[in-house]
Amino acid sequence: MEVVLSVGPASPARPAPNDSAALVRAVEQALTGFFAGRRELVAELGPVFVSATAALEDFVLRGGKRTRPSFAWTGWLGAGGDPDGAQADAVLTACSALELVQACALIHDDIIDSSRTRRGYPTVHVDFERRHRDRGWGGDSAHFGTSVAILIGDLALTWADDMIAAAGLDAAARARFAPVWAAMRTEVMGGQLLDVHGEAGADDSVAAALRINRYKTAAYTVERPLHLGAALAGAEAELIAAYREFGTDIGIAFQLRDDLLGVFGDPAVTGKPSGDDLREGKRTVLVAEALRRADATDPAAARLLRDSLGTDLTPDQVTRLRDVITDLGAVADVERRIDELTERGLAALAASSVTPAAGQRLRAMALAATRRVA
Amino acid sequence: MEVVLSVGPASPARPAPNDSAALVRAVEQALTGFFAGRRELVAELGPVFVSATAALEDFVLRGGKRTRPSFAWTGWLGAGGDPDGAQADAVLTACSALELVQACALIHDDIIDSSRTRRGYPTVHVDFERRHRDRGWGGDSAHFGTSVAILIGDLALTWADDMIAAAGLDAAARARFAPVWAAMRTEVMGGQLLDVHGEAGADDSVAAALRINRYKTAAYTVERPLHLGAALAGAEAELIAAYREFGTDIGIAFQLRDDLLGVFGDPAVTGKPSGDDLREGKRTVLVAEALRRADATDPAAARLLRDSLGTDLTPDQVTRLRDVITDLGAVADVERRIDELTERGLAALAASSVTPAAGQRLRAMALAATRRVA
Repeated sequence: MEVVLSVGPASPARPAPNDSAALVRAVEQALTGFFAGRRELVAELGPVFVSATAALEDFVLRGGKRTRPSFAWTGWLGAGGDPDGAQADAVLTACSALELVQACALIHDDIIDSSRTRRGYPTVHVDFERRHRDRGWGGDSAHFGTSVAILIGDLALTWADDMIAAAGLDAAARARFAPVWAAMRTEVMGGQLLDVHGEAGADDSVAAALRINRYKTAAYTVERPLHLGAALAGAEAELIAAYREFGTDIGIAFQLRDDLLGVFGDPAVTGKPSGDDLREGKRTVLVAEALRRADATDPAAARLLRDSLGTDLTPDQVTRLRDVITDLGAVADVERRIDELTERGLAALAASSVTPAAGQRLRAMALAATRRVA
Repeated sequence: MEVVLSVGPASPARPAPNDSAALVRAVEQALTGFFAGRRELVAELGPVFVSATAALEDFVLRGGKRTRPSFAWTGWLGAGGDPDGAQADAVLTACSALELVQACALIHDDIIDSSRTRRGYPTVHVDFERRHRDRGWGGDSAHFGTSVAILIGDLALTWADDMIAAAGLDAAARARFAPVWAAMRTEVMGGQLLDVHGEAGADDSVAAALRINRYKTAAYTVERPLHLGAALAGAEAELIAAYREFGTDIGIAFQLRDDLLGVFGDPAVTGKPSGDDLREGKRTVLVAEALRRADATDPAAARLLRDSLGTDLTPDQVTRLRDVITDLGAVADVERRIDELTERGLAALAASSVTPAAGQRLRAMALAATRRVA
């Protein structure tokens, strides 16, 4: 079998910085082309593999905001990347490959979090658990589902690299890209490892929660995608430093907003049950800050928090915990952190040499991410 | 944080084709250098990540035959690669990176197979399950162990790519290497997916078992490593075709020998309990052939096999099943297949332009792999 490292037909439209809908379409077109280019190799391994990779393709193309490719592409444009230049298609393909890393992260995370649904569909391990049960196969259906989902996630991770290798980047761009790509993938897995240890209760400090946010979310979602875009464009060190400051601050602020929504968000808007993060016992900065304050001033509240978090709370108990967290001043503290981080990140961006259109777009993305209600 | 894509000090000794001990040492030196080069990045993520990556390093360096790097390096030498040439260190590093792919495959496979030990040590998920329990952390210890092992396997997979990216291969070698690397990783995961489906009983035919052997073992262990070595050397198409024929045949023969040992091997030599594969219900070619023959001629034996395989067999039941499988002629059939495949593979090699020393080494490796008793 020969593998043609093709990523399908080149994208005819290279989206401008302010056309986010066009960018989402272009990313999905690049991913569709990649999967099409794999079809021959996949078919050689037979129908079982065809259906497993079809599940991966469905998962990747079923939706999502394409946040990471958007930051990477906008970062490239902002560093002077020419959307009509010879490398534009290659850059767009490389940016789109971030969605395959993300597919692995989500598929494996759903196993780790025992999540049953994502975006209204069964998670991959649940999907294959059901297929196993429906077909009356031998052995444990849940273990089968987990096994298949581990392997599909692994496949997504290796295909991300294949998509980069086949993107058509020139050698200099490849060389600038590689160390950032390496750091990003190590950071996201490191961040997830910290998160798993955090939920086990290894460390419930504010510093530990901030460290998880830094690596699992900020670096992976904003900072490194922007850095990748800048590296592809051959940006100067000052712009890279500004992007990374902006990306870290906005990325952490984004996660802090997410933490608030996980406890106080309106289920009708967020699509998640109210207070879900409290039931799951997530060790967020919000919770760590509440614990820190309770330990210092209110032992009864500290006991209540430690005894209740991660248990099957009634709606009344959720309301009670929300009040405790608010009364301790933890919500105001997190809101203050979000404001400070957002201001500092936007200031770094404003002082940089980013092109005006891309800077405007990044500013809008930052505000949308940190002020959202869902 | 800046990631220096360093793989440590260059190996001073480039092993000759017939010095397998030197090759194992050189591979382990390259891997040790790679881990050393990661230490700074790892430390930035904190002590939890340091200990997780230390567990990966222990796992990778604790032993193993370094089969895949050996085939790749010998394939490169056999295609005219110069062990004193400028690319030799880069090639040795790239070959060694196969051990990181293998680390991911084994760590994830041990979760999938629910294996408790490997090479006399606890498997990674069991190791972290115990750490969780010993420290009295919250939540389910087994689920924690699985979660950490999924992430450590993911890390090994991405680090394999990082090690390739940093090996120092020239651009032309990289370009020849990439599609073979892509095919190999897709094939091994595809093979594992077929295996998981096979054990669930989706298909118990000889053809299905052979297909799993083809992708999970032959392509991944022999054919593609040789192909990678040849690609790095810029080998001509005829030699690549001969390597692939040899690699597929010897790789399948190797797996068939493994299947026989899994049922008939001496526990004192193999280190595994006698008849373990029968208790696990592995769908090997041996078992598939026994079932095929029983279905055609001996319905009682077929019923016995289907009812017993994958159950908690007593030693007497194992002895009985062995006799049934032997009496059906399945053992003789598998031995005949091994002989034919070995002869055909060796003939392809003998007719090729492989250099004499490497050819001799590959022949010895083939015979060791297919005639072994452990």
